[in-house]
Amino acid sequence: MRYLTEADIEALEIGAAILGTGGGGNPYIGKLRTLQELRNGRSIRLISLDELNDDALVATVGGIGAPIVSIEKLEHGAEGVWAVQALEAHLGRKIDALAAAEIGGANSMMPMITAAQLGISVVDGDGMGRAFPEMQMTTFSIYGHRSVPAVLADERGNLVLFKHTTSEEWFEKLARATTVAMGGSSVGVEAPMPGRYVKRAAVPGTVSQAIALGHLVLAANRQHADPIPLICKQEGGVHLMDGKIVDLKRHLRGGFSVGEIALEGIQAFSGQRGSIVFQNEFLLLKQEGVVRVSVPDLVVLLDVDSGRAITTDVLRYGQRVAVLGLPCHPLLRTPEALKVVGPAAFQLHDVEFKPLRAA
Amino acid sequence: MRYLTEADIEALEIGAAILGTGGGGNPYIGKLRTLQELRNGRSIRLISLDELNDDALVATVGGIGAPIVSIEKLEHGAEGVWAVQALEAHLGRKIDALAAAEIGGANSMMPMITAAQLGISVVDGDGMGRAFPEMQMTTFSIYGHRSVPAVLADERGNLVLFKHTTSEEWFEKLARATTVAMGGSSVGVEAPMPGRYVKRAAVPGTVSQAIALGHLVLAANRQHADPIPLICKQEGGVHLMDGKIVDLKRHLRGGFSVGEIALEGIQAFSGQRGSIVFQNEFLLLKQEGVVRVSVPDLVVLLDVDSGRAITTDVLRYGQRVAVLGLPCHPLLRTPEALKVVGPAAFQLHDVEFKPLRAA
Repeated sequence: MRYLTEADIEALEIGAAILGTGGGGNPYIGKLRTLQELRNGRSIRLISLDELNDDALVATVGGIGAPIVSIEKLEHGAEGVWAVQALEAHLGRKIDALAAAEIGGANSMMPMITAAQLGISVVDGDGMGRAFPEMQMTTFSIYGHRSVPAVLADERGNLVLFKHTTSEEWFEKLARATTVAMGGSSVGVEAPMPGRYVKRAAVPGTVSQAIALGHLVLAANRQHADPIPLICKQEGGVHLMDGKIVDLKRHLRGGFSVGEIALEGIQAFSGQRGSIVFQNEFLLLKQEGVVRVSVPDLVVLLDVDSGRAITTDVLRYGQRVAVLGLPCHPLLRTPEALKVVGPAAFQLHDVEFKPLRAA
Repeated sequence: MRYLTEADIEALEIGAAILGTGGGGNPYIGKLRTLQELRNGRSIRLISLDELNDDALVATVGGIGAPIVSIEKLEHGAEGVWAVQALEAHLGRKIDALAAAEIGGANSMMPMITAAQLGISVVDGDGMGRAFPEMQMTTFSIYGHRSVPAVLADERGNLVLFKHTTSEEWFEKLARATTVAMGGSSVGVEAPMPGRYVKRAAVPGTVSQAIALGHLVLAANRQHADPIPLICKQEGGVHLMDGKIVDLKRHLRGGFSVGEIALEGIQAFSGQRGSIVFQNEFLLLKQEGVVRVSVPDLVVLLDVDSGRAITTDVLRYGQRVAVLGLPCHPLLRTPEALKVVGPAAFQLHDVEFKPLRAA
């Protein structure tokens, strides 16, 4: 158990953006809101999976919607609390701890803010170990727990409870339609589950992992060192390319930010070509037309100068990026998991998942 | 208090279709399902507003979605029961009686079926006295009661509870999006309210009214008499035109069946021209370019030969129709009501509502 500091939250912003693989929303606003909670005297208590009581009731919390919407559509700030309280009223009992549905991007901050406001703990683990665009794409759902009952809240105070859905896909479909009707973003509290299940199904230690990653980048920045080899070493990843964005297609489809970018190699990678497909998150990197990294492994884009992660909503023509491949957690590479978060789940039917290997 | 007979349900089909003004869904399938409940030994107990206990808890029930969808997308049959039970679980108490949200069309049958299955009463009154396309367009909502908490069910068993919405329009928007995601139709149970409010806000006696209207048409059919003057006399309405449909525009927009028809007068109305705008229901009749009837008054189309109501989903080129104008209930003509169900609420901004008068 540890209490997170302001420095940890600054680091979490950076690490969560890297693990977000371009999605999960920009954590900047969430960071400011989390820091505000700390400055208001609230505390963020992080507990490891080992410290979690078997009988504790844990729910996931996260923002839903295309990242690009959340830049201009501000939250009220209490959506998570409203949704937790509505779910508690429905269940007739208190929720003891919150976990991030996804550690990637803004959704890393959501449990911090809501747990601080409610005075409950945050679990050191999440349902993705990265970010994914759909709600059934959590290890909690993959390994058999239902996302419903779940509550969605918007900044006005609208509260919709999904009492029962006949499948995880139906929950995603109905919650997505509700989110689009709410204006493109909402906050969801889902999957109330016992601690003993969280211990088995969560991707473990991902809050600490993101914070450590952020501290490493910040230390490199202070020492004017290149963070990229350090990130690769810490995460067991590969620095695959430095490139310039020479083509960018991006549009909103059903609440998702989808598209493709083309890259032309620069510096040591001059003369090489790459392309990246995304749906909120980066899904697939091809080099010279050959698949190099695909979901569920992580395709990470960093600004080649600052080493900070680039999200799909701020991609622009001419941007110079470093492309990294990071291996996902083994919980995402099982046959059950690949059915839900492998290439075919993203309509990439001609791609077979091959675990990332060092070059 | 009376128990409805099979003959009453046959009559209700005809009368509810007339009051449906083209919308509310075709009551034919609902009638078959209601008759089946009676043949299975269940009973339908109709109580007047006077007989309703002040402290009874009453909810409305109705199908949501474009009528054209419900022809091919069959219901499971227990949606209403599932939704009532989910709402009861949320409220922590039993619902004592059901009312139609709208008496027009298929939604007249929904409380009959669900109340028979649950063994509770149906209230003789509804929220529209006709049919309207949106859920906030009930007298219950207009006179101050909220539609939420409400539950939507689909034929798979998906159950979505609208716990709180910041306005009636937000409920409509969120429930509509959910319905579209459910495939275009759903069953909703809404607005749990005390008997004393229902007595004040319901359009009174509309189940009996629809049944009486149906018996009148059936009796005229048996006697080879023209039902149209009889309907006009009983409802205080006007026979405005007989015409042939010479143009028909119809499309689905956001779950609604919207469009316009052009009519060329036939028989006694030869040489006249008319046009009718619809959004699930017929909203507006113009004759020679002049507004003759507009919402909330009823524009009713009957087959010129059979005298049966024509719904917007079966309109076709060349059809020969009788057009009637029927006055709506005074509860729909107050300034509060006209804000919600007057021409401007249907984007007919250049139309000022003038109560229908006999020619």
